Amino acid sequence: MAALFFAQMRFDPQDPGCEDNDRFVLSKGHAAPILYAAWAEAGVIAHDALSSLRDLDSDLEGHPTPRLPFVDVATGSLGQGICAAVGIALNARRIGSSYRTYVLLGDGESAEGSVWEAAQAAAQLRLDNLCAVIDVNALGQSRETQWGHDMESYAARWRAFGWHTLVVDGHDVAAVLAALDEAAETSGRPTMILARTLKGKGISFVEGRDGWHGKPLTGDNLTRALGELEGQLGPLTDNPPIPPAPRRGAVPLAPPDGAAIRLPAYEAGSAVATREAYGAALAALGSGDPRVVALDADVKNSTFSDKFEQQHPDRFYQLFIAEQVMVGAALGLASRGAIPFPSTFACFLTRAADFIRMGGIGNVNIKLAGSHAGVSIGEDGPSQMALEDLAMMRGVPECVVLYPCDAVSAGRLVVASAAHTGMTYMRTSRPKTPVIYTEDDEFVIGGSKVLRESPNDVATVVAAGVTVFEALAAHDALLKVGVHLRVIDAYSVQPIDAEAMVQAGEATGSRLITVEDHYAAGGLGDAVSDAVASHGITVTRLAVRAVPRSGKGDQLLDRFGISSTQIVAAVQAQVTAVSAPPA
Amino acid sequence: MAALFFAQMRFDPQDPGCEDNDRFVLSKGHAAPILYAAWAEAGVIAHDALSSLRDLDSDLEGHPTPRLPFVDVATGSLGQGICAAVGIALNARRIGSSYRTYVLLGDGESAEGSVWEAAQAAAQLRLDNLCAVIDVNALGQSRETQWGHDMESYAARWRAFGWHTLVVDGHDVAAVLAALDEAAETSGRPTMILARTLKGKGISFVEGRDGWHGKPLTGDNLTRALGELEGQLGPLTDNPPIPPAPRRGAVPLAPPDGAAIRLPAYEAGSAVATREAYGAALAALGSGDPRVVALDADVKNSTFSDKFEQQHPDRFYQLFIAEQVMVGAALGLASRGAIPFPSTFACFLTRAADFIRMGGIGNVNIKLAGSHAGVSIGEDGPSQMALEDLAMMRGVPECVVLYPCDAVSAGRLVVASAAHTGMTYMRTSRPKTPVIYTEDDEFVIGGSKVLRESPNDVATVVAAGVTVFEALAAHDALLKVGVHLRVIDAYSVQPIDAEAMVQAGEATGSRLITVEDHYAAGGLGDAVSDAVASHGITVTRLAVRAVPRSGKGDQLLDRFGISSTQIVAAVQAQVTAVSAPPA
Repeated sequence: MAALFFAQMRFDPQDPGCEDNDRFVLSKGHAAPILYAAWAEAGVIAHDALSSLRDLDSDLEGHPTPRLPFVDVATGSLGQGICAAVGIALNARRIGSSYRTYVLLGDGESAEGSVWEAAQAAAQLRLDNLCAVIDVNALGQSRETQWGHDMESYAARWRAFGWHTLVVDGHDVAAVLAALDEAAETSGRPTMILARTLKGKGISFVEGRDGWHGKPLTGDNLTRALGELEGQLGPLTDNPPIPPAPRRGAVPLAPPDGAAIRLPAYEAGSAVATREAYGAALAALGSGDPRVVALDADVKNSTFSDKFEQQHPDRFYQLFIAEQVMVGAALGLASRGAIPFPSTFACFLTRAADFIRMGGIGNVNIKLAGSHAGVSIGEDGPSQMALEDLAMMRGVPECVVLYPCDAVSAGRLVVASAAHTGMTYMRTSRPKTPVIYTEDDEFVIGGSKVLRESPNDVATVVAAGVTVFEALAAHDALLKVGVHLRVIDAYSVQPIDAEAMVQAGEATGSRLITVEDHYAAGGLGDAVSDAVASHGITVTRLAVRAVPRSGKGDQLLDRFGISSTQIVAAVQAQVTAVSAPPA
Repeated sequence: MAALFFAQMRFDPQDPGCEDNDRFVLSKGHAAPILYAAWAEAGVIAHDALSSLRDLDSDLEGHPTPRLPFVDVATGSLGQGICAAVGIALNARRIGSSYRTYVLLGDGESAEGSVWEAAQAAAQLRLDNLCAVIDVNALGQSRETQWGHDMESYAARWRAFGWHTLVVDGHDVAAVLAALDEAAETSGRPTMILARTLKGKGISFVEGRDGWHGKPLTGDNLTRALGELEGQLGPLTDNPPIPPAPRRGAVPLAPPDGAAIRLPAYEAGSAVATREAYGAALAALGSGDPRVVALDADVKNSTFSDKFEQQHPDRFYQLFIAEQVMVGAALGLASRGAIPFPSTFACFLTRAADFIRMGGIGNVNIKLAGSHAGVSIGEDGPSQMALEDLAMMRGVPECVVLYPCDAVSAGRLVVASAAHTGMTYMRTSRPKTPVIYTEDDEFVIGGSKVLRESPNDVATVVAAGVTVFEALAAHDALLKVGVHLRVIDAYSVQPIDAEAMVQAGEATGSRLITVEDHYAAGGLGDAVSDAVASHGITVTRLAVRAVPRSGKGDQLLDRFGISSTQIVAAVQAQVTAVSAPPA
C-alpha cells in the first residue's frame, strides 16, 4: 500500500474523482482499515477520524463503500474488485486517459471463479494498464489457504491465463517497487504481482500465525505490538508524502445529443420482439450519447445488443460466457462515467446476482438488460427461463425495474433508463408481440398505462410484458358476455405506479388481479400488493407456481396459469354474478 | 459420445440409477439431442420417442432435466455440470464405489468462472475418478470463441490447474479411446481431454461454419446432410452395443439411526446464536445419519459447520472461497444419495444463485444454510448482510425456507430439513438470541408458533429470526398501556403457515403486521400477504427499505425500521384508539 500510494500511483488527493487519476481497488475489502489509513496519509481523511471506523454514520464502514469519494465500487464480497478493475481499465481506453488501474486481492480470494473470469477478460482485452497484486499470506479466515505459500502454484495459473507474472517478497519494498515499475513498462498484457507475505509481519506473537483473522489487538497485546513495530520504523518526517500529479489526457467527450436519438418507428399491429426493439433503441441511443457502452456474454444475436455493436464497435465489449466479469466490468465502467448496458438471457443474470447486490450498494449507474424472460420462451425449457429476475432486481432497493410489452415502449424505456442516474433493469421477451403504442405515448419511470377502462369495470387486471396481451384477450372474451374489465400495463415494476393501482382498485370493487410470467415470489404481484395494502386492497396473484418444462410458449402460459383463460377464470371466481364466457 | 457410451463407460442400461454405474454429465446441456440419442442406442429410450423432442409433456426437453432417470442434475446453464460432476465423483469415494464420472463441456462454456472453481476443487480433492472432455469446436453462439482452435491455450490452463491434460482429434475415435484409457489409468488427479472438433463434421456445407448454432437441418438440407453422412458410415448391425456391467463395490451404508440424533439441551433464557445451534445440530445429525455430509467455503468458524467437521472429518468437504462449486458439488452429491448441507454467509449464497435456480429444476435434495442474515450483523456493513436471501430461496417453487429465532427451534429444524426430501434453506443469525423454546415444543415444516395471544389482541405481529424478540418487546411495551398484541414466530417462511396467519388476521381486526430483517421484496411480508389475500386481509410490511450501513446491530434494526419501537409505531398507526406507550 505504501509503495503504491506514495511512490507509484499518480493522483491528485484533493480531487479523488479526477478522471486521469490512477485508480486503486481494494478487492480484499476486509482490509478496509489499511485503505483508510492510506487515504489519511494522503491527506484526504483526518487522522482522528480514523477512530470512527465501523461507527454508525461514519463513512469508514467495515468494508469500503462508494460513500467515500475514493472508492469506485463497494467491495467485501471477494473476487469482485478485480472484475470492476477490468471495467475501470477499459474506461481509460474509452476516454483516452493514460491512468493506470491497480487492484489488491487476497490469496484466499483467488479461489473465486470470478477472479478467473477477470483474468481471461483482462488478457483477452490486452489491458496493459491494469496491474493486480495478490497478498499471498497463506492464511484464510478458517484455515490455511489451499496453496499456502506455494508461489509457483499461483504463478503457473496466472501465466497460463496470459498475464505477465512476477513473484516478490511482499515485505521487500524495493522489490515491490521494481515489480510495479516492470508492470508499468509491460505492454500488451496485464501484470500480476504475487507478493509473498506474512500476516502480522513484525509482531512476534502474530506474524504468520493462524487465529488472528478479523481480531483487533487490544490491551497489553496492543501495547506490545506497537512497541515492536515502532522499534522497526525509520526516522519519521512531518512532511506527508505527495503523490505525483496525474498525467492529464482524458479526451472530453462530446456532450450527449438528445436530438440524435432517433428511435425506429413501428407500425401499429406489427409484431416485434421487445428484445429486438431494445437492441435497436440501444444502437440509436449510442449515436446520441458517447457515454453509452454495451457488454454481452456471447448472446448478442439473442439479446440484439449486436445492433449496437454494428454501429458502435469501439464501444461494444464482448465478455464471452462470463456473466460475473460482464456485470463487474460494467460496474467499473459506470463508476468512471460510462453508461454501460450489460445484456444476456435474464436467467443468466442470476449468475451475477452477487455482483448486482454489491452494485446496489452505491446504486451504481448500470443498465442491466435480460432477454428471454419467463415460460413464454417455450421449447428450450426451464433452464433458459427467467422466473426470478424481477424478484432479484426488486431486491436492490433503488433499482428501477422495467418490463415493456411492445416495441414502442421498450425503445422509449431504454432512453429513460439511460437518462436515469442509478441502476436499472429491463426485462425483455423472446416472442414477437403486437405494437400497441404510438409515438405520442409517454413512458416514465414509475408510470403505467390504462389500456382498457369503462365506468362498469368489475375488476382490474394488472399485467406486464407478454401477459398484457393475455389480459387484453381476457378483456375481449369477458366483454362478449357483458363483463367489463380494466386492464393496466404496469411496465414500471419498480417503482410501481402506486397511485394508479390504488385508483383502479378502488374503482373496480377492490378486485385487483396481477398476472405475470414469473414466479409468485417477489414479482409484479408482490409489488402491487405492497403498494395498495395500506388502502385495504388485496391482490390476487396469477403467477407461475411450479417448475415449468419445455413446450410451446402459448401452451406453457396456459399450463402454468397465466393465460387469458386463467385470467377469465380468476375474474369469474371473484365476480360471482358473471356468466361464463364462450369457451 | 459413442466412445464413452459404448466402449468406455460401465453401466447397466436397465438400471440407470444403479449406484455403481459410471456417470455421465452433459455440462453443455444444449447438446441434449445427442444425449437422448445415446440413451436410445443403449435401449433406454424408444427410437420413435426421440421425435417428441421439446414437445409439451415429453421428458425429452430442450435441455436435460432430472425428469429422465439417467440425468443426475439439470444442465443448460453453462459451467454447472462440471461442478456437479465434482460432487458425483466425491460421492464414489463416500460410498466406496469404483464408478467413474465423465463430463462433457463446450469450449465457450469454459469461459465461466465456475468451471475454474471446479477445476481447482477436483485437483485439490485429487479426484482421479473424474474425467472431463471439452468439445473444442471453436464456435460459440454468436461468434468464434475467444481461443478458437488454439488447443495449447486450453491445455496450459488445465495443466496449471493441476489436471492431467490430453489434446486429441475429437473425430479420431481411436485417439479418443486411447485418451479415455489413459484417464482411467491416471491416479492422484483428474484428467481433461481437449478434443479438437469441427461443428457439423462430415456435412460439407455445415462443417466448421458459423451460423448453424441451434438451427435444425430441414428439407433439402436435411436430405443432403443425411446422404453425405450415410455415405461415411461403416456396415450397420442389428445388435445394439451392450455396455459392460458396472463393477459392484458400493458399501451399503448403515441405515439412519434417528435415536442417535441427540441434540444439545439449551437452558431457557440463555443466549445462543442460531448459527451455533445449527452447527451443533448438524454434528449430531451426522452421528445418526451416515448420508449427511457438510460443505463450506472457508467460513466454517462463522457458520459453525466446523462442529460437524470435528466429529465427521471424512464427510466434511472444504471448497474454499468458491461458492459455485460448493453448491454445485452439493447438487451432485445429493443426486447420488447423499444429504449435503452446504453453508456460507447467507449473502454469499447469492454467488451461487444460478446453481440454486438450476437445483430447483428437479428439487434436488440439498440443505442450504446461510448465516449472518440481515442488518443485525452490525459493523461489517452491507456487503456482508443478506437482505435478499429469503426472496432468492422463495423463488425456488418447492424449496422449504426456514428461519428460526432460537437455538432449540434451529436444532429441531435442522433435523426436519434432513428428513424432508427436496431442497431446503435455513437462515441463521449472527447475534446470540435468548432461548425461548423447550424440548417439548414441536417444529414442523409449514408450521408457526403463537408466542403471545389474548382475547383482546388488536393486531398480530408476524416475525421470524431476530425480529421475534423485537415483536416480543413491542408486545411488552404496548401491554403496559393496556394494548394487547398477538405475536407469531413464522419460522417456516415457505411454506408459510397460511391457516395460522388467516386465523390470527381474522381474530385481530384484519391487522397483520410483518417485520423482517430483509428487504421488502419477496420476503416474509410478501409470503404472508400472498397467503391471506384471498381472505381479504391486507398486510403491513415492516422491512429494510434502503441500503444499510455499518453500525451496531441494535442501532441498525432501529435505523432501518424493524425495531420494537417501529413495531409499536406501526400498531399505533393502525389502532387509532391506542394511547402512546412510555418512551
